[in-house]
Amino acid sequence: MEKQGQRSRREFFKWASLGAAASALPDRMLTAQAPSAAGRNETAVGTDTAARRQAMARLDLGVASYTFRKWKLPETLKATRQLDLKYIAFKSFHLALDSSPGQIEQTVAAVKQAGCVLYGGGVIYMNSADEVRQGFDYARTAGMKVIIGVPKPELLDLVEQKVKEYDIQLAIHNHGPGDKVYPTPQSAYDKIKDRDRRIGLCIDIGHTQRAGVDPAESTLKLADRILDVHIKDVSAATAEGHTVEVGRGVIDIPRFLQALLQIRYRGKVSFEYEKDEDNPLPGLAESVGYCRGVLTVI
Amino acid sequence: MEKQGQRSRREFFKWASLGAAASALPDRMLTAQAPSAAGRNETAVGTDTAARRQAMARLDLGVASYTFRKWKLPETLKATRQLDLKYIAFKSFHLALDSSPGQIEQTVAAVKQAGCVLYGGGVIYMNSADEVRQGFDYARTAGMKVIIGVPKPELLDLVEQKVKEYDIQLAIHNHGPGDKVYPTPQSAYDKIKDRDRRIGLCIDIGHTQRAGVDPAESTLKLADRILDVHIKDVSAATAEGHTVEVGRGVIDIPRFLQALLQIRYRGKVSFEYEKDEDNPLPGLAESVGYCRGVLTVI
Repeated sequence: MEKQGQRSRREFFKWASLGAAASALPDRMLTAQAPSAAGRNETAVGTDTAARRQAMARLDLGVASYTFRKWKLPETLKATRQLDLKYIAFKSFHLALDSSPGQIEQTVAAVKQAGCVLYGGGVIYMNSADEVRQGFDYARTAGMKVIIGVPKPELLDLVEQKVKEYDIQLAIHNHGPGDKVYPTPQSAYDKIKDRDRRIGLCIDIGHTQRAGVDPAESTLKLADRILDVHIKDVSAATAEGHTVEVGRGVIDIPRFLQALLQIRYRGKVSFEYEKDEDNPLPGLAESVGYCRGVLTVI
Repeated sequence: MEKQGQRSRREFFKWASLGAAASALPDRMLTAQAPSAAGRNETAVGTDTAARRQAMARLDLGVASYTFRKWKLPETLKATRQLDLKYIAFKSFHLALDSSPGQIEQTVAAVKQAGCVLYGGGVIYMNSADEVRQGFDYARTAGMKVIIGVPKPELLDLVEQKVKEYDIQLAIHNHGPGDKVYPTPQSAYDKIKDRDRRIGLCIDIGHTQRAGVDPAESTLKLADRILDVHIKDVSAATAEGHTVEVGRGVIDIPRFLQALLQIRYRGKVSFEYEKDEDNPLPGLAESVGYCRGVLTVI
């Protein structure tokens, strides 16, 4: 049995060592796993709890609030905390792009009060210079670290100027086969790779897989510009694929999470659960649980 | 990195090879994992989906309906299917022990109609000969394969007689430090180990851990009599431990699931999620997702 087990594990780690990305083990992984090699007490009860928690904490999981697009803000924040998550990126449903500074401050206070951290906003479409300016002003007032955006390519000069001026990241979100401008992470990467490093990607792994592209390979290949992640699962690796609970679809989630660990990813991994819009909580909970289970073991 | 990964995996498999139980790899595990060693296509998209599904299917997950003790039967069955589970064991809330044969048949038909399988009943307390007879008649009429029971030790002769007469298993459920008769799996095992093999254990891993006993070790040690499992997690390995979402507590779930695979366990692994009795679905969903995530990788 052990031989079989080891062979499988070797295969697993081989997946993740593809590509030209950094091959060193993330610091957090060493911290979490090294004690297990240093004399585990085989009979003690619960001694590995800390190591398992550390293993899960190697990635910062969060929520893209598009998940809760039919829910008001208080219920959205309550559900986020119920899942023991805190990082959240707002879709405009929960904070309108044309909000006044006072409205923004009030909402940010409510987020903090609930124990959550508003780290980003998106997806924010930027089809004009005014929309670029509005998006960055909105993000700055709200204290967001990253805008998950879809700027028209001809606006990227202005976007770069704003990124430098405000020190806020802009992560371009790929939308799959139906997206003529940014269908895949690579298509976005090609347009920003020579710009300021604070312009990068929000890899949406569902849309990536629907475009027939492996999210783990994109992660390893485009590692230097991944600023945010939308994690989800889809029923098929084609344009017809629809979103499902993470673990039930076709995306190789263990391999993808392993790729994030391998590149020492330090951004957020936010669940954008699109199914069950009237009550997304059970499906989101299953998705979060699945990823935590995988992270405990890989 | 690969060396570190392999060492960790070896440690992991070492946990599971403790004890005197069967050490051969379960057939289903070989089926699920062997293909990965036989030339995985590293670049294809979604090719491992079938293998991941097989890995998850190595254990039959189900629900102990005590989880939904505040919910009516239709909502309970709907939630079970929503989680892509089908096996269910009824607590009396969903089918009273003194139901008439007609009532039982009606309920069983509703379960089947919903796409679920009523495989067991419990926890059923048997404090008198009449309660033993009632429990077995109830289970036989409902077509249950196993009774998760707590029979008084002095009734075990009658229980054994009924097990033989009806060919229905009786799995004794351990209730932790507060239980004077069956606190741990071992305490139940000692009372039934010389009886018919259809009398065995329902290991409740929460109560086991609360009694300071490692569920994985109990599983390996008492393998020949494990007939049912209540899976859950608890906040502490003491009498004060309370139930939490699986993955958030102190139980080493990967190690426990690995132990079940190692003993070639063929019964059901039913979630008894005791927290959030008014709306257990999100926490149950997170628990199910966590175990599926672990099963995908181990």
